[in-house]
Amino acid sequence: MSLLVVGSIAYDTIETPTARRENVLGGSAPFFAYAASFFCPVQMVGVVGADWLSEYTEMLQKQKVDTTGIEIVPDGKTFRWSGKYHNNMNDRDTLETQLNVLGTFQPKLPENFRRTQYVFLANGAPSTGLAALDQIQGADLIVADTMDLWINTTRSDLDALLKRIDGLVINDSEAKMLTGEINLITAARRILTMGPKFVVVKKGEHGAMFISEYEIYVVPAFPVSNVVDPTGAGDSFAGGMMGYIASRQGNLDGETIKNALVYGTIVASFGIEDFSFDRYKQIDRSNIEERRNAFQAMTAF
Amino acid sequence: MSLLVVGSIAYDTIETPTARRENVLGGSAPFFAYAASFFCPVQMVGVVGADWLSEYTEMLQKQKVDTTGIEIVPDGKTFRWSGKYHNNMNDRDTLETQLNVLGTFQPKLPENFRRTQYVFLANGAPSTGLAALDQIQGADLIVADTMDLWINTTRSDLDALLKRIDGLVINDSEAKMLTGEINLITAARRILTMGPKFVVVKKGEHGAMFISEYEIYVVPAFPVSNVVDPTGAGDSFAGGMMGYIASRQGNLDGETIKNALVYGTIVASFGIEDFSFDRYKQIDRSNIEERRNAFQAMTAF
Repeated sequence: MSLLVVGSIAYDTIETPTARRENVLGGSAPFFAYAASFFCPVQMVGVVGADWLSEYTEMLQKQKVDTTGIEIVPDGKTFRWSGKYHNNMNDRDTLETQLNVLGTFQPKLPENFRRTQYVFLANGAPSTGLAALDQIQGADLIVADTMDLWINTTRSDLDALLKRIDGLVINDSEAKMLTGEINLITAARRILTMGPKFVVVKKGEHGAMFISEYEIYVVPAFPVSNVVDPTGAGDSFAGGMMGYIASRQGNLDGETIKNALVYGTIVASFGIEDFSFDRYKQIDRSNIEERRNAFQAMTAF
Repeated sequence: MSLLVVGSIAYDTIETPTARRENVLGGSAPFFAYAASFFCPVQMVGVVGADWLSEYTEMLQKQKVDTTGIEIVPDGKTFRWSGKYHNNMNDRDTLETQLNVLGTFQPKLPENFRRTQYVFLANGAPSTGLAALDQIQGADLIVADTMDLWINTTRSDLDALLKRIDGLVINDSEAKMLTGEINLITAARRILTMGPKFVVVKKGEHGAMFISEYEIYVVPAFPVSNVVDPTGAGDSFAGGMMGYIASRQGNLDGETIKNALVYGTIVASFGIEDFSFDRYKQIDRSNIEERRNAFQAMTAF
């Protein structure tokens, strides 16, 4: 029941209305991997430069993340992203992007990663996802994330990727952008015609929705009053969701899906309470269960 | 277990990206009253002009709404509101407002409305709400709605009103505006210091949240793919919520509150599927129960 993730690894510089952090660990793969690791063993594939700190490898290994898929480019520099959050802590501006080693990233999956049952292509170029899929055999469940950048710049790669995945995880605004639809449910249903058998729409502070041909499941966000840094929340949500599904042997019945959405929501709700991985380092599965039960009491009718 | 509502009665002219309706029934009081009438008897107070159509009185009476509190000003004209929805069907521009008889509205409660247990002051000038409260004795539960206009123009009246109500129903953006807080939960908690014992935050297509000193309950919106006209959705939500609470003898335990949020959500989800009251006229309580059960299946974990 291992879960493979291929995605970006970043050093983030983040400004919020009240604080700033420089060159902290970020990227879609680490956030996904850490979040998923609360539920199942994780294999992570990504690329970093000579500036990679071994303490991050150690942090991930402590969480049962198999880091042998992290390629270190000796004469390269790790991908860097810098952003500034608006006062509402939802909208943000990208201040700078240095692709560095991510710009020429060709994922190379270690031999023992190639028959993993559950696969997540975290946010990254669709061509990277396609290259990873070419190395994978007989996965039970392949899910990918995407974003506006790929919709706008590499649409034909994205279309090809959509035909090879079981599920797509996407933001609400990007689901509308991808389809040209105004209504979110209509947009999600339209995506089902592009390849995936299900779509999970992330709505940030407003929760998430799962749509397949015959099902809709919705979950509100867990109310968090001290949002410190929302970076990585979407990747963490996907990690908690996929980690739970993998821990349930890929079962996709309604109960599992709803619980997967909930676990994704709960894990992400911790992550945004501090910068980078600082909050995650303080919690374990018991904290997640406790908050899940509180969430159930807030929502069950 | 009657429920009294005081609010605006309007003739709305509505443009959406695909259709237009002129001078259809709208206003906070009729939407609230109709929605609540699925759950309990309703008494409605408002003002209209000589252009009031008796078919609207008949429509409300058919729904067990006591219309004796509708004041008809013989030489006046009913309040008119005209608005245009953006492509996203959420944002809208007000094109025109003709206050007409609403501009000088002094609510006069019929004698048998003055000892009603459950009271809702639907969206309208806070001074109207205060004038209504002066005529009410010994209500068990008083809840009010408000909006940006009153926050910006009649703040001292609104502050006085907040001190005399048990609960406030308010939009998310307006909760932030009222308190100057960026985080919604912090904003709602701040409102609790202004008078109300609980706050219900309406988030439109993203659901709703109830906050009191020791409780938080959250509910997502019911997913609707054919949104035809969102006008009155917030008033309908409040009507369904208050109607259910009144039908439960004002019980405010967690189960009742969560179900009240859900019934408000479900009733509103029907209303937006057509203009004005067109969709409501096609449904009864059994349709509401059916959709409530579907919603439970979508959300329960």
